[in-house]
Amino acid sequence: MSIPSDKSPIYDPRGKGFRCRSTVANLQALIMNHVAQMSSENCDTRDGFRRVLAQSIISEKPIPPFDRAAMDGFALKANETFGSDYYTPTIFTMIGQSRPGLAFSGIVKTGEAVAIATGAPIPDGTDAVVPVEFTEINDDQIKVRESVTPGRHIGKTGEDVMPGIQLMNEGRVLRPQDLGLLSGLGLSQISVIKKPKIAILITGNEILPAFESGSEHKIADMNSPMLISLVERDGGVPFFIGPVWDIPEILASMISELANDPKIDAIFINGGSSTGPEDYAPSILASQGQLLVHGVALRPASPTGFGLIGSTPVLLLPGNPVSCLCAYDFFGCRIVRQLSGRNPEWPYPKKQMQLAQKVSSVLGRMDYVRVQIRNGPNGEMVYPLAVGGASILSGTTRADGFIVVPDDLEGYPEGTELTVWCYDIP
Amino acid sequence: MSIPSDKSPIYDPRGKGFRCRSTVANLQALIMNHVAQMSSENCDTRDGFRRVLAQSIISEKPIPPFDRAAMDGFALKANETFGSDYYTPTIFTMIGQSRPGLAFSGIVKTGEAVAIATGAPIPDGTDAVVPVEFTEINDDQIKVRESVTPGRHIGKTGEDVMPGIQLMNEGRVLRPQDLGLLSGLGLSQISVIKKPKIAILITGNEILPAFESGSEHKIADMNSPMLISLVERDGGVPFFIGPVWDIPEILASMISELANDPKIDAIFINGGSSTGPEDYAPSILASQGQLLVHGVALRPASPTGFGLIGSTPVLLLPGNPVSCLCAYDFFGCRIVRQLSGRNPEWPYPKKQMQLAQKVSSVLGRMDYVRVQIRNGPNGEMVYPLAVGGASILSGTTRADGFIVVPDDLEGYPEGTELTVWCYDIP
Repeated sequence: MSIPSDKSPIYDPRGKGFRCRSTVANLQALIMNHVAQMSSENCDTRDGFRRVLAQSIISEKPIPPFDRAAMDGFALKANETFGSDYYTPTIFTMIGQSRPGLAFSGIVKTGEAVAIATGAPIPDGTDAVVPVEFTEINDDQIKVRESVTPGRHIGKTGEDVMPGIQLMNEGRVLRPQDLGLLSGLGLSQISVIKKPKIAILITGNEILPAFESGSEHKIADMNSPMLISLVERDGGVPFFIGPVWDIPEILASMISELANDPKIDAIFINGGSSTGPEDYAPSILASQGQLLVHGVALRPASPTGFGLIGSTPVLLLPGNPVSCLCAYDFFGCRIVRQLSGRNPEWPYPKKQMQLAQKVSSVLGRMDYVRVQIRNGPNGEMVYPLAVGGASILSGTTRADGFIVVPDDLEGYPEGTELTVWCYDIP
Repeated sequence: MSIPSDKSPIYDPRGKGFRCRSTVANLQALIMNHVAQMSSENCDTRDGFRRVLAQSIISEKPIPPFDRAAMDGFALKANETFGSDYYTPTIFTMIGQSRPGLAFSGIVKTGEAVAIATGAPIPDGTDAVVPVEFTEINDDQIKVRESVTPGRHIGKTGEDVMPGIQLMNEGRVLRPQDLGLLSGLGLSQISVIKKPKIAILITGNEILPAFESGSEHKIADMNSPMLISLVERDGGVPFFIGPVWDIPEILASMISELANDPKIDAIFINGGSSTGPEDYAPSILASQGQLLVHGVALRPASPTGFGLIGSTPVLLLPGNPVSCLCAYDFFGCRIVRQLSGRNPEWPYPKKQMQLAQKVSSVLGRMDYVRVQIRNGPNGEMVYPLAVGGASILSGTTRADGFIVVPDDLEGYPEGTELTVWCYDIP
């Protein structure tokens, strides 16, 4: 067994394990500086839901590409209806019909009208549509009982989109209606930001594969199912390896292989991230690249590390499951979203709400506090969960969300109005 | 061409097209009454992210399944450290080590200690862990410079989850951390609500396949890319057919085939939903089953219909793209979410905000108003978009979200504090 000594660049046996902890803000800024957005690729627009646009969209042609009826009725020349009303109808001769996708091919002359359905092209020689409910039909004779103005009930060419308009900007996360509009523009391919491939390496001798029954001295991997889902949520493609034993030579060669794989865009190493005898990840990262931060003033994710091997970002997440979730939320989330061109902010829905009980923290440390939302004396209120350890994952499943105590506060008094980030999936 | 006559059961040529419009609330209640939640199926828990639990989860065994160290240090009998401090250490003999996944197999006697790493099993005969930073090591002699109480720095069996606890309820939408906990419980299979398969049938003679370039009198299908994404968002599996011409015999046989397919859980017919000459969907639905509602007091989705063929819900959505989105948001969304066991409320994030300009509506009709969020004199404010027609889809791509004017109001005055439902994808 190797108990770490004073020679270790990071571990200080006289202190609390870390020589000096980074603030959350400092590590988040480092991530922004060292993690670049992915390049672009083409994708079928029909697969574009939730992808991030890598181009702006400028219309090349009008939508709709032709004048069309906005009502069912009769297309005619508006000025011939002037003066018509219920008691003094004007009579037109119906000379044909225009149906959606099936235009009337002739030219409409004075005294003539064409039956037209919504969406059908407006015939040449007409400039308005009289709705069917203001007409009376006898064979080919149409009594029009209303006056209409030119352009009435016509959807003009380009009424939805005129050519040359910038419709969407680079960086937009595509919504359902965006795909609809791109379809109308005839854009079957678009340029989007590539999805980052995130290696998730789970380490620990005591870790069994996920979903296996725990044995006498081992426990199933609880973190990879969580990290895989989180990476997917944030637009990444997880590449899972593990669980791997804490054997430094093996870990070092796996990490080196991942860092040299051009298809891997970031490496998340979970477990062995602290300063104990089995915590090899920090020194491996330091020897293969740069360990930029080790130890963060964040409860419960203090044993978090971040660095680079070449240009590949490497995040060290603590093995305790709540710490792992917290480290992902503060740093992993940001790395994946920065790579994939998304807003780095949390995707959790947020609510403003009053705190039902005080929350204590200490100056110089940020706290990630799991909470429940319950009905209190003033409607919905926030109740901090009295769950101790970083290992109590069931606390995060009982929780409705979390609040954050910033590092310049010693906590929040009861009654504080604050933001709750909700775990709920809408 | 067939201009509808008085004989049609629905169309009234003297009125505004619909004999009588349903309120939004009435149709939503009908949907809740006629659309049942899907049955359950087993799924691999690792694929369970965002699935809806069809069972409750009760723990059968403790997590962790053994007492383990919460710190790196030395396991020993706490009462032997009483009175120890920096100046008067107690000396122990290190007789071995306990590592994660690799327990110490002997029994620890008086004066003995075992080196232990975080996560490793607590050896028999010990009841506390002294952190390494309060010790000094000389070969196998350990000076302990702190007193610890029994249980100190030990994660007890079941500290995360005790057996027999109800951890999750039926109906829960599974989150990343839930999968982590299910992994810890060794549950590799769970029972979830089946995903509903939603047939999306696009009709219209003027409709080209999605993403094709519009031609002289035709326009690409803008609605199916939108509806497919929306159905996926709400947990359904879209099954797309179209575009199909407005030929009543063909439509009728396609609809009948879909309604008789046991794998189809709901049918969404888009286009031909109104009262015009090419609007065949309502009468086909009425003849094959029940047309329960035709026409809704909702702008811009008035030509919406709903009914049943056998027990299959059938929703008729208007062809105009904004109307289609609006009808989906109010009714389609509810059908898919009700089938898939989800909360029927909108999944759009919501914000409370002040209205920058008044919005007018009419009594007896609900309005779906697209809005932008911009900085106004009092911070972020809501600006209604001055977009007219139901056909202006680009308005919904310019919009940040929408507000709703209920049917018992004539609008909202400037300055009203109201809820904005955000289209943004977080």
